[in-house]
Amino acid sequence: MDFMEKQNRYTDMVNDFLDKSIKEKDLLEKSIYTAIRYSLLAGGKRLRPTLALAVCDMLGGDLEEVLPYACAIEMIHTYSLIHDDLPAMDNDDYRRGKLTNHKMFGESLAILAGDGLLNMAFEVMLESTSSKPNNLENKIKAMAYIAKSSGIRGMIGGQVIDTESENKEISIETLEYIHRYKTGALIKAPVVSAAIICNATDEESQSLEKFAEGLGLAFQIKDDILDVEGSTEKLGKKVGSDASNKKTTYVSLYGLEKSKQMLNKTSEEAITNLQKFGTKAAFLKELTEYLIVREI
Amino acid sequence: MDFMEKQNRYTDMVNDFLDKSIKEKDLLEKSIYTAIRYSLLAGGKRLRPTLALAVCDMLGGDLEEVLPYACAIEMIHTYSLIHDDLPAMDNDDYRRGKLTNHKMFGESLAILAGDGLLNMAFEVMLESTSSKPNNLENKIKAMAYIAKSSGIRGMIGGQVIDTESENKEISIETLEYIHRYKTGALIKAPVVSAAIICNATDEESQSLEKFAEGLGLAFQIKDDILDVEGSTEKLGKKVGSDASNKKTTYVSLYGLEKSKQMLNKTSEEAITNLQKFGTKAAFLKELTEYLIVREI
Repeated sequence: MDFMEKQNRYTDMVNDFLDKSIKEKDLLEKSIYTAIRYSLLAGGKRLRPTLALAVCDMLGGDLEEVLPYACAIEMIHTYSLIHDDLPAMDNDDYRRGKLTNHKMFGESLAILAGDGLLNMAFEVMLESTSSKPNNLENKIKAMAYIAKSSGIRGMIGGQVIDTESENKEISIETLEYIHRYKTGALIKAPVVSAAIICNATDEESQSLEKFAEGLGLAFQIKDDILDVEGSTEKLGKKVGSDASNKKTTYVSLYGLEKSKQMLNKTSEEAITNLQKFGTKAAFLKELTEYLIVREI
Repeated sequence: MDFMEKQNRYTDMVNDFLDKSIKEKDLLEKSIYTAIRYSLLAGGKRLRPTLALAVCDMLGGDLEEVLPYACAIEMIHTYSLIHDDLPAMDNDDYRRGKLTNHKMFGESLAILAGDGLLNMAFEVMLESTSSKPNNLENKIKAMAYIAKSSGIRGMIGGQVIDTESENKEISIETLEYIHRYKTGALIKAPVVSAAIICNATDEESQSLEKFAEGLGLAFQIKDDILDVEGSTEKLGKKVGSDASNKKTTYVSLYGLEKSKQMLNKTSEEAITNLQKFGTKAAFLKELTEYLIVREI
């Protein structure tokens, strides 16, 4: 299977699982199912669950076994976007080319849809673990890792500093700290949790962790570059918002050219951590290279 | 130990655990620790974790074993209050006699503090399960039950219908549906999850489930009565807000006297489900009776 075939296979598995995990029903509270489906099934790269599935494949694990945890991370990622877009936060009107959740359903339902999605991530993981009670210690360790990554010691912590840094000059150390948590934690989570579930050795886990850290940083530098060079049409969201919000980014700190050099260097370094997996790491290597040239 | 001694013992255990689970640290994201502690350690009845500990005691279980799950439910309850109070939701200024979280820390941090607390509930449960990996299948079943109870098939679902029912006349069936989920689910969760962790028999579990359903309903009827008869000073929040928000309540549907009769009948029925536990159920029986006469 070549890169695109594999990527499509992973994305199809993820979209199918997400679709099945939240079916609209004829309930009084139907509106929240609609609001959650709107954001959860709005497409997106599915980078995080793809990473989990790719790591699982590489380690010879069972994709179906890892799928619920992979999709739970996508749910957490999606809830964080819904809440980030709220008027009290970034106040964004568009996301992935569609109206943001609160623009579509109102602020109150968008808050609850975000809460519901975060909660659902744990419902999905725990119900899957409960119905297939094998490999329990590893599954619990993986869920604990995912929970830590999305909480105040992870993504939310990064989000807090990011919010408080708006309209302020911040140091490169603070910028890296924000990214390590706000974006990095949820890129590391699928890689590390899949490695745990698939019984990776300590040595394999350490390499994968370093790979994911580099990938997360590269992903963020690319995001900052796209906010300057990208197309609103392709991205489905406003470009130039970092500059208009006076946000410190890699581009504002280092300029465009230096940022591009950093992007290349960071992703090359990330890939060196895959060496011990040989040809089995082909997909993860190509995925990293794809993320550098992506336009969305 | 008499009722008050036991209640104080449970409350102390809970407050101590909650305090330890979120210590302020010298971090860039310190503000969210402060905001979470502000609401989580603001007192409150600790009804939900108390129920879990009391059920555990009654069944001869180990209180320390149940404590993290009990406190996780309190975290979920507290996050739901923070988000409920937001301007886009109930827009309340006071809670438990103190300024609401967003009045104190701003809307953006209050949203993140709520998200962080919900997430932390699962961090605490999963880390505790991971560090004490005994009785794993039951613990996972209990966590899955708690997750379902707090999500769109539980508390959030009820909250959605409640929000959508404001300024509308609703039927008694809809009112009961709202309460079964919005309040009831998180009163049932500590009872049922403690029963699962403490290896209750099916028969015991069924009785406890019925007890918790009755207790949840009685609790809600009492809340509706307090919103009419209670004291703002004692409650630490505005009374009369149901009427001014034109909310349908037991009192608006049945009047005060009939509501009081329903309250007594519902709690008496709840207590009959404790018969098989004999004198061991004394605390839960007294707790139910206390909830009827409470002024806060």
